[in-house]
Amino acid sequence: MWATLAPVPYHHGDLRRALLHAALDAVTEHGPAGLSLRDVARRAGVSHAAPAHHFGDKAGLLTALAAEGWDLLVEALRARGGDFRDQGVAYVLFATGHPAHFAVMRAPGLTREDDPALVAARRRADAALRAGAASADPDPATALAGWALVHGLSALLLEGSVRPGPGEDVAALARAVTGRLVG
Amino acid sequence: MWATLAPVPYHHGDLRRALLHAALDAVTEHGPAGLSLRDVARRAGVSHAAPAHHFGDKAGLLTALAAEGWDLLVEALRARGGDFRDQGVAYVLFATGHPAHFAVMRAPGLTREDDPALVAARRRADAALRAGAASADPDPATALAGWALVHGLSALLLEGSVRPGPGEDVAALARAVTGRLVG
Repeated sequence: MWATLAPVPYHHGDLRRALLHAALDAVTEHGPAGLSLRDVARRAGVSHAAPAHHFGDKAGLLTALAAEGWDLLVEALRARGGDFRDQGVAYVLFATGHPAHFAVMRAPGLTREDDPALVAARRRADAALRAGAASADPDPATALAGWALVHGLSALLLEGSVRPGPGEDVAALARAVTGRLVG
Repeated sequence: MWATLAPVPYHHGDLRRALLHAALDAVTEHGPAGLSLRDVARRAGVSHAAPAHHFGDKAGLLTALAAEGWDLLVEALRARGGDFRDQGVAYVLFATGHPAHFAVMRAPGLTREDDPALVAARRRADAALRAGAASADPDPATALAGWALVHGLSALLLEGSVRPGPGEDVAALARAVTGRLVG
């Protein structure tokens, strides 16, 4: 004789994690604008009501993903120390290594920009990026140029417009390019 | 008494233009991935069959838009002369002034990258960008850094992450940022 296995209920924190993970997969496949709570629930194998229960709506879920993305970026920047070029390399490695998070972080029209967790995470990232730039050159144009440079290289790599040369990896390419910046 | 006006038939070239124009509006509203030939026909006020007749399918229509975008970029670069920084400013002004074209040019997965008109237009743009960079510094990393810098600044402006300061316009911001590049 056989029995139907009852689904094992998720612990609250685990369910939130599972939903965020499923949402990342959905963003990878359909982009941030194409996300649907129903699809996320299906991917996580939970009831249709679970994503709305945890995140309210699609904007709420994307906002949580964006905040998580900015926190992951801060971790990546801190792991590299305060050097401007090292931080530039860390930014490009983060963006190309976490394309779904990066896409959501770049879609402010789809998230709640006044969400306290998102505001706090963005502020930490902004402070980390500015500190790295200021250590090289106090001119604020240098900080913006550094951000634009690594943001642009990340975008060109993700869009397939640029790829590393033979025997070169993304880190080496990012290091060569950030080396062209004054400071 | 009144009469129903018969629609005035488009001249062939005009219809193609009208469809491209309608497609730009559609991309502005729904992004490149959200484009549908049916929506484009409705916007242009023509039969459902017209876009397919002219462009084959969605990828064909997006490919034509991308080629047009690269040609517009080349025109914008040439109008500024060969100076590296002037070209950087022209790039940012093109991207922020033609957001729908720029979005399609950045979505190679949605276009036919081997289309002869698109290949030729991209090659002209690539040559123009490299020539501007080479006039400042023969190191190829400088050309890539310049492209990444203006591509990134354009993206940050379009994403709403950066805006010009009080009394500053996009051109002035682009000029300040490109000034932080070696060469």
